[in-house]
Amino acid sequence: MLHAILDAGLVAHVAVQDESGQPYVIPVGYGRRGDDVLFHGSTGSRLFRSLAAGQPTCLTVTLLDGLVLARSAFESSMNYRSVMVLGVARRLSGDDELDALRAISEHLLPGRWADIRHPSAKERAATLTLALPLDECSVKVRTGGPEDLEEDVADPVFGGVWAGHVPLTESFGAPVPCDNNTAGLTPTYIETWHRPAP
Amino acid sequence: MLHAILDAGLVAHVAVQDESGQPYVIPVGYGRRGDDVLFHGSTGSRLFRSLAAGQPTCLTVTLLDGLVLARSAFESSMNYRSVMVLGVARRLSGDDELDALRAISEHLLPGRWADIRHPSAKERAATLTLALPLDECSVKVRTGGPEDLEEDVADPVFGGVWAGHVPLTESFGAPVPCDNNTAGLTPTYIETWHRPAP
Repeated sequence: MLHAILDAGLVAHVAVQDESGQPYVIPVGYGRRGDDVLFHGSTGSRLFRSLAAGQPTCLTVTLLDGLVLARSAFESSMNYRSVMVLGVARRLSGDDELDALRAISEHLLPGRWADIRHPSAKERAATLTLALPLDECSVKVRTGGPEDLEEDVADPVFGGVWAGHVPLTESFGAPVPCDNNTAGLTPTYIETWHRPAP
Repeated sequence: MLHAILDAGLVAHVAVQDESGQPYVIPVGYGRRGDDVLFHGSTGSRLFRSLAAGQPTCLTVTLLDGLVLARSAFESSMNYRSVMVLGVARRLSGDDELDALRAISEHLLPGRWADIRHPSAKERAATLTLALPLDECSVKVRTGGPEDLEEDVADPVFGGVWAGHVPLTESFGAPVPCDNNTAGLTPTYIETWHRPAP
């Protein structure tokens, strides 16, 4: 389940704090390679350098699957799958870093890495790639309908309120070529791209 | 734009840390009332009590709008809208708290508050409701296609790679009534529920 949730997400939120103790929650694209979650930032980013220097962090991936509509405000909720990873990230380098960048690219759009230009030495120097081990994780999943209090279900007024859940799914629109695109056909790996179902 | 992004999201990610300095990034449903973002947790949660006690926090809302497919890995990106709010949350109480709970409910599903049972005294005692002012915010938006290097566009191999972007949208499935639902018709505010478009 841990791997399945991570493999189904596109964006993670990562915690980092500055010298004053002010926390930041930063959205990042990410990937997974075995039992590491991988993400990258700019070597120019002070916050990313703090993570590379060993600051404890938390990376959370949340997939929102729907609204849960109970008869009471208190029992109303959301369906979701989430993973919270706690730990210290390590900076990757050399061929290991290049392979991690490949893994992130292939996570976001499988098949793309074979087509595109890989990072140059200059681009590599501007990229800080981090691996956070999946050693300490919390997985939470909520599915299905509401769990109303019996007294609300039996209530003459609130018992008659529509109760259930509304699924929420991500969908992908038609690919939009940019103005200087010269490729005649859209590659199959783009046309058929979708995230794993819940 | 700040308000529009917050009004279009459903889940925020909030930073909080424990006594040891370990940060956590927690997904929360939220709402907005004027220039406050509102969210709630359990009074039994040590982490939420830390926020109520004045620990500096960050709340981030990220709306992922698509993948940006450049001809190089380095220029590949995502389209998104995000808001990062920094500051200290304050705990709400009394009628002000009840109105905030209404605002969160109405943010997630407009129209629902009029139908459902409002929180009892016991439920209120279990709920910790926080307001984070929109005083210090960072808004980031990326739209459109890739910005490839000229040399990649001109390259005999990479210039021919399909380049553009793929939109990603949330969509809502048909409402699923729970087993003990007795309401014959699904209310219009549920049938027509959708998030504001980008």
